[in-house]
Amino acid sequence: MPITRIAIRKGKSREYKQALMDEIYGAMRETVAIEDGDRFMAITEHDDTEFAYGQFLGIARSDDLTQIQVFWAPGKAVEAKLAMYRRIVERLHIHPGVRPEDVLICVVETAAENWSFGNGEAQFYKLTA
Amino acid sequence: MPITRIAIRKGKSREYKQALMDEIYGAMRETVAIEDGDRFMAITEHDDTEFAYGQFLGIARSDDLTQIQVFWAPGKAVEAKLAMYRRIVERLHIHPGVRPEDVLICVVETAAENWSFGNGEAQFYKLTA
Amino acid sequence: MPITRIAIRKGKSREYKQALMDEIYGAMRETVAIEDGDRFMAITEHDDTEFAYGQFLGIARSDDLTQIQVFWAPGKAVEAKLAMYRRIVERLHIHPGVRPEDVLICVVETAAENWSFGNGEAQFYKLTA
Repeated sequence: MPITRIAIRKGKSREYKQALMDEIYGAMRETVAIEDGDRFMAITEHDDTEFAYGQFLGIARSDDLTQIQVFWAPGKAVEAKLAMYRRIVERLHIHPGVRPEDVLICVVETAAENWSFGNGEAQFYKLTA
Repeated sequence: MPITRIAIRKGKSREYKQALMDEIYGAMRETVAIEDGDRFMAITEHDDTEFAYGQFLGIARSDDLTQIQVFWAPGKAVEAKLAMYRRIVERLHIHPGVRPEDVLICVVETAAENWSFGNGEAQFYKLTA
Repeated sequence: MPITRIAIRKGKSREYKQALMDEIYGAMRETVAIEDGDRFMAITEHDDTEFAYGQFLGIARSDDLTQIQVFWAPGKAVEAKLAMYRRIVERLHIHPGVRPEDVLICVVETAAENWSFGNGEAQFYKLTA
């Protein structure tokens, strides 16, 4: 269910980008009970004049800032979300080596009826209706 | 009102991309009562290490997966949304030939006051306030 | 807190893109009480077959259409949002010279617990919990 959008500065290697996707997905699997294969992700790359960040909350961000947006359906416990944030940061720090200060995460929740996972069906709505 | 964001793998023709936009818009026009010209869309293309998907819910997706995000204001009937999902899949299957398994749709709804369609005005808020 | 996503047609100069980000951020600072450095933005560029718009509400848009999506937490007053729309349009009109008709803005709000600004912490949730 999660759709994940990741925005980074241009210039990272293929391995780096693959690692971003794999580790974020791995962290989700460990913390927010998503199923195997529930993975829909895309990365966009941006030049310096297409990407901006500041030092909000006194956090020393760098050009390696990884802006992560996650879209899923409501119902995740707050504790699971908090665990996901921590685990994404831990895993990205190990591989591909993103500094913890450089991980920005924003979750957007949208109702079960708002999802179609293929074949034109509203699979989640059918489960919850 | 809908803002539509479409993420696909890199390498499709101009005609293919134009067809994605035209058919999704056509399906919306047929099912969710949007007006002529209510069309704001953008496609992003992604390399293999910038794009990921799984077989969630047992659906056999391929590299042709079309990740569609639709942002609009609340108030659409559930039946209209379900019809939109079916019609997007039907139309994309005919033209440009996307497999039904490869259409992922996620709708995000945001209040009337959250939209400005030009000139710095909040056209929807004025209508509903 | 705001994460801002901007979609434009390909071909604008570096100065133009930098101005889009600077002026939108400046308008936010003036109208919706965001702090210095609370700035997370990315621009995507699109070919003609990756970008579409119509004349919804009778507004004469052009290829310079600037599609702006803003994600932040709930709690902004409606009047502040309306002021932000006006000020974004005013500032972009002056620099880099975007026609008022070509500014589309959509705000999406998501709860305090849905944000992590770095270090894997949920800074807003801790403040509000």
